[in-house]
Amino acid sequence: MASTMQECAFSSPISVADATRIVLSTTGCLSPVSLPPHQALGLVLAEELAAPDPLPPYPASIKDGYAVIADDGPGDYSVIAEARAGDDASDIVLTSGTVAYITTGGPVPKGADAVVQIEDTEQLDDYCGEKKIRILKRVSKGHDIRPVGFDIAQGEVILSAGHILGPAEIGLLATIGVTVVKVFPRPLVAILSTGDELVDSSTRSLGRGQIRDSNRAMLLAAATQNQCSVMDLGIAKDQKHEIERSLDKAIAAGAHILITSGGVSMGDRDLVKPLLSERGKVYFGKVLMKPGKPLTYATISYPDRNSIGAKDLLVFGLPGNPVSSIVCFNLVVVPAIRKLSGWENADLCRIRAMLQEKVPLDPQRPAYHGALVQWSEKGIDGSPCFLATTTGKQISSRLLSMRSANALLEVPQGSGYISQGSLISAVMIGDVHNPKRDLSDSVGQVGH
Amino acid sequence: MASTMQECAFSSPISVADATRIVLSTTGCLSPVSLPPHQALGLVLAEELAAPDPLPPYPASIKDGYAVIADDGPGDYSVIAEARAGDDASDIVLTSGTVAYITTGGPVPKGADAVVQIEDTEQLDDYCGEKKIRILKRVSKGHDIRPVGFDIAQGEVILSAGHILGPAEIGLLATIGVTVVKVFPRPLVAILSTGDELVDSSTRSLGRGQIRDSNRAMLLAAATQNQCSVMDLGIAKDQKHEIERSLDKAIAAGAHILITSGGVSMGDRDLVKPLLSERGKVYFGKVLMKPGKPLTYATISYPDRNSIGAKDLLVFGLPGNPVSSIVCFNLVVVPAIRKLSGWENADLCRIRAMLQEKVPLDPQRPAYHGALVQWSEKGIDGSPCFLATTTGKQISSRLLSMRSANALLEVPQGSGYISQGSLISAVMIGDVHNPKRDLSDSVGQVGH
Ligand SMILES: [Mg+2]
Ligand SMILES: [Mg+2]
Repeated sequence: MASTMQECAFSSPISVADATRIVLSTTGCLSPVSLPPHQALGLVLAEELAAPDPLPPYPASIKDGYAVIADDGPGDYSVIAEARAGDDASDIVLTSGTVAYITTGGPVPKGADAVVQIEDTEQLDDYCGEKKIRILKRVSKGHDIRPVGFDIAQGEVILSAGHILGPAEIGLLATIGVTVVKVFPRPLVAILSTGDELVDSSTRSLGRGQIRDSNRAMLLAAATQNQCSVMDLGIAKDQKHEIERSLDKAIAAGAHILITSGGVSMGDRDLVKPLLSERGKVYFGKVLMKPGKPLTYATISYPDRNSIGAKDLLVFGLPGNPVSSIVCFNLVVVPAIRKLSGWENADLCRIRAMLQEKVPLDPQRPAYHGALVQWSEKGIDGSPCFLATTTGKQISSRLLSMRSANALLEVPQGSGYISQGSLISAVMIGDVHNPKRDLSDSVGQVGH
Repeated sequence: MASTMQECAFSSPISVADATRIVLSTTGCLSPVSLPPHQALGLVLAEELAAPDPLPPYPASIKDGYAVIADDGPGDYSVIAEARAGDDASDIVLTSGTVAYITTGGPVPKGADAVVQIEDTEQLDDYCGEKKIRILKRVSKGHDIRPVGFDIAQGEVILSAGHILGPAEIGLLATIGVTVVKVFPRPLVAILSTGDELVDSSTRSLGRGQIRDSNRAMLLAAATQNQCSVMDLGIAKDQKHEIERSLDKAIAAGAHILITSGGVSMGDRDLVKPLLSERGKVYFGKVLMKPGKPLTYATISYPDRNSIGAKDLLVFGLPGNPVSSIVCFNLVVVPAIRKLSGWENADLCRIRAMLQEKVPLDPQRPAYHGALVQWSEKGIDGSPCFLATTTGKQISSRLLSMRSANALLEVPQGSGYISQGSLISAVMIGDVHNPKRDLSDSVGQVGH
């Protein structure tokens, strides 16, 4: 069976869209967990939440001023109480001819049916120790009062499953008194670099034939940025037993995703694909994209789903060149992370941007170019739009090609160039930027 | 002096643009710190970094195949070595008539001047234990070889100060062997809620006149999302000594920013402004915006700059209504956080989006409406653009107004409406979304 898989994996390349479809079709949401809200920022809600009590729970003043009986109208009144919050004025009932001092958010005393803001009143001199106030303006019943349930009705669904928890949503959880919330957990992503040429990035002086491992640090950062927990598996030499030992570590830790880089080319020491064929099911081993052609995807079954909240370990064998690996991560691994994390729409966000330069087409493969996409109020014909500038010469081994990039331009397969001023599809991989940011450092400089 | 400040703070409201300008003019970058790169993700680089060695450090193969002497041309050759990585084939010199097996990224042996990819070769049967290969294709000198320094020249500046460190930049740091990096640190943001009506969000059943504190959880999340360290100061009652005690805690902890919410209105227990006048310098106490008018800003000097990397504690007195507080945070506090964090451009990112509904204007103040902004390939006249839908009825006490919002629409002061289909400026406060996301849950529903 392994050899059939391998043949399949080594057959003709599939499209990025098909690769993503296959990955998503073999990926499910993780089992929900319960967390305190402050640990759930950025995660997806896995339950529906309704308000146990109305907000405000009492008729509340919208202004600082005086609770009045609207029908009393303008005139001079005795201030019989102060209703700020808590139990203030809880025992009083306003009767005609009296008012109560009240602050923003304070409970409107019984009997009162409107609030007159402080700006529409005049403080009178104390009269025998009695506080007196002049109401200058007539208001209608209910004026400047939020009735019970005005902001949130009792029983109202305030968040439904599938919601991504941002600051406002965390605030809503606090409003309704939620102390633990059911969310989809962060996927655990294990990351391994493979290659005899690799040494740890802390290596000061390089021996012959050595380069520092950059993929692992980059992919650990990328997974972290995508709300994952990460596990650093270090570097494996191009030896079957070393790679297998790392794979077993990922399995023992209950990782949801294993990302390897290197070892998926045509060399006799490219051992990742054969190992994955042996241990699991390889779905594809070549994707029609530049860079990233040898991208490999496999799943390995977990014996017991419940222990890690997922059925399979998803394994992405990324190419060793750093640009290839980060491009594959963004295009194919990120949707898998989103699906595991409970996102209703795991798709990447694509926008359209106007090219600031001409871009060469590749006759064999659709290409992905690192680019800085910035919003421009002027655009090119005067209408606001995104402008795209590629982040330098695009070479798969040259990580500088991705420096400052917040998008990947989707350059179709073809001959010649896409001309400057064309609208091009861009996959967002970072934040949208303002036009003011200085682009000069996207051009490499040789230092002293 | 305190009373002069206070008068100034209570005078006529200033614009949001002026408020931001004042805040930024009183804010400086924090003093840089040294961190390991994996702790620096999302932070701003505070030094220029150059490559200590070239990449590749040796002539490296781009393909799996055979290192050859280009002039030899097609024909049958003895494979005299295997050059994968490290010390492989380090002692051999290729001479005419011989080739060496080589893998992607492997060091090209001395004597060789080109690589022929494996697809352009044919393995011959072993001849008396000697490995033989047929080269099928003529290649030119340098073919499929990356010369020394092809990707990064020795001494090349790979990152300059001001760069935000994303995954690719973290990968570049690893490439050049950086183990500690100088960055601007995360600002420490202390967050306090004030108000006699507030109880902790964990309170199950509310007493009379009580509501749960939602601002603190929301603002802690918002500061965390903006790469800050946070400090939770809890709830202070509307008592001067309670608020002052919290202020002193923030100062003792060396906080860079203190955010309070509540206590900045016109009530007799709105004690935040007077306290700030007493302890520091109040720059403004009213801003022409809806919501958020009582927004207050002050600075309090630290006796010793060096201990915390900043001269002053920046204090933002946000209004107590939750929508007001998150709007003020995004518009005025975020630029301050960015400046402290070393961002070269602290400005908020504004885009333009097409309104999907008509939006009422406020005759007194420019307004900010929570909205979901999504990219649409179709737009309205068929050209791609952002579409904006407000996230429900906009009421400052109603946090549901901000549920799902990723933008604040900037609605100018005026009368009547902005019509559906107009282009409107939107401040991005969250990620750009695809158009597919379901909007139905932006409409409040009352549950069972
Ligand atoms: Mg390799
Ligand atoms: Mg208050």
